[in-house]
Amino acid sequence: MITKEDIKAYLQGLQDQICSAIEMTDGGVVFQEDAWQREGGGGGRTRTIKDGNIIEKGGVGYSAVHGETHGALLKQLNLTEAADFYATGVSLVMHPRNPFVPIIHMNVRYFEMSNGIFWFGGGIDLTPHYVDKTDAAWFHQQLKNVCDQHHPDYYAKHKAWADDYFYIPHRQETRGVGGIFYDYLGKDGQNKAAHFDYMQGVGNAFVPIYTHLMAKNNVLPYTEENLKWQRLRRGRYVEFNLAWDRGTKFGLETNGRTESILMSLPPQANWEYDYQTLNETEENTLALLKKGIDWV
Amino acid sequence: MITKEDIKAYLQGLQDQICSAIEMTDGGVVFQEDAWQREGGGGGRTRTIKDGNIIEKGGVGYSAVHGETHGALLKQLNLTEAADFYATGVSLVMHPRNPFVPIIHMNVRYFEMSNGIFWFGGGIDLTPHYVDKTDAAWFHQQLKNVCDQHHPDYYAKHKAWADDYFYIPHRQETRGVGGIFYDYLGKDGQNKAAHFDYMQGVGNAFVPIYTHLMAKNNVLPYTEENLKWQRLRRGRYVEFNLAWDRGTKFGLETNGRTESILMSLPPQANWEYDYQTLNETEENTLALLKKGIDWV
Repeated sequence: MITKEDIKAYLQGLQDQICSAIEMTDGGVVFQEDAWQREGGGGGRTRTIKDGNIIEKGGVGYSAVHGETHGALLKQLNLTEAADFYATGVSLVMHPRNPFVPIIHMNVRYFEMSNGIFWFGGGIDLTPHYVDKTDAAWFHQQLKNVCDQHHPDYYAKHKAWADDYFYIPHRQETRGVGGIFYDYLGKDGQNKAAHFDYMQGVGNAFVPIYTHLMAKNNVLPYTEENLKWQRLRRGRYVEFNLAWDRGTKFGLETNGRTESILMSLPPQANWEYDYQTLNETEENTLALLKKGIDWV
Repeated sequence: MITKEDIKAYLQGLQDQICSAIEMTDGGVVFQEDAWQREGGGGGRTRTIKDGNIIEKGGVGYSAVHGETHGALLKQLNLTEAADFYATGVSLVMHPRNPFVPIIHMNVRYFEMSNGIFWFGGGIDLTPHYVDKTDAAWFHQQLKNVCDQHHPDYYAKHKAWADDYFYIPHRQETRGVGGIFYDYLGKDGQNKAAHFDYMQGVGNAFVPIYTHLMAKNNVLPYTEENLKWQRLRRGRYVEFNLAWDRGTKFGLETNGRTESILMSLPPQANWEYDYQTLNETEENTLALLKKGIDWV
């Protein structure tokens, strides 16, 4: 029988593993840990880096919080009776310095309530400033390999879910090339051990995927024009996270820990009125920020 | 009897007046006009500047749109029957280059429906990167002078409304030193002429107020440290506009014209994890970003 302590232990180890691997691949930075307590119960350890060789700004957060379930969530679940909750997860975002290294986001989380309801959620998605088709296909293939080990339908389902979730309606663009996103696994009360296995599959996939993309692309030379484009693309990242991301919104509206939630924002973002693409490379990227592209 | 044509004519003239005054005070830039049509009816002319002597990025939008009232708005008004709407307004945001020149925002607007409902809304508010108490008091006094010419209660009421509206809950900060904000004036069907007068009072107050603050503060020298602080404060401006501003949210969610809505965003914004103020000047500014300060 899987307990929340098992999951918590895995997630703490995952945070350690990820931070070590990023430090080693970056070669120029050490995570700073900020341990915090939550007034209503629990806490976390937020680890951040800035000004690394490869990562300009990044964070890997671990938290395990508990207390009375927020009214907004009870309502969302159509529950009328108060219940306590326990939520634990690892969440990360990396903003690289080189515009040819993609931004990445990963989150794996577990939630349970005193009334017996539980579920797992998570995913990994990639936001290249310039979409490289080979990298995007490789990235999706890695995720498909993980998914296929757990359920034949997972990749198709969770890939489509990521396309829908990481979408910026007011730009009619996806945030990046997507990846996988899933939620509420186990809400039917079934297969807890299998869902925990899947969480571990996704969590453990992060290091080999991202360290490969860091090392492969950080050697590419870039110009001031590439940096300008990167800042505009980071602007879109900000637009998605602040205006549309349901996780961010829920956190900010329910008095979550602001610094941990907004750890996802880039070091710098620029905006221009009605920006017009400068060349085919920029246009090709925009053409690939669409839902439903079959990458594998 | 005031007609929508009267209001439209005033607003077009107001846009012209404001753009001329900013061009003259800046001395280094000319507005570019982007005229657009709205698919459902009407259109606008969005005028923007960038890289001026004083204004780094700014826009003054005029629009007059009409069509079928969006379901979200009908619901908000507790109306069950479909109705056409007509909405016209001028909206502006200026992001200056010098961190000692404050960001300003103004909006005046008029809305009417085919069922006879109409109202006026608007306001002016100031977001200094560094709060100068003398400037803030002077700014509020100018607004109070306008308000007092229209109704003895307006300043107190509309100043408090601005404090509530321009508030960033997740930072427990106001966006800036506030100003005035009002909405739904005339929704009771009364005093249309007086409300239009007030719109003109607020609209006409913009030029003398902001050209004074531009000229007065742009002569102040600034350092790289001041620019760094400015970019972080612009980050807060982005957080408010994208995560909390009801006008922006409504526009983005109801398929408004994205480039005109997001004209309000700064040229550049930065984020740091858990930024700690560097000195008393920064701390003094944060201490003044609170609701309920009596500036006059």
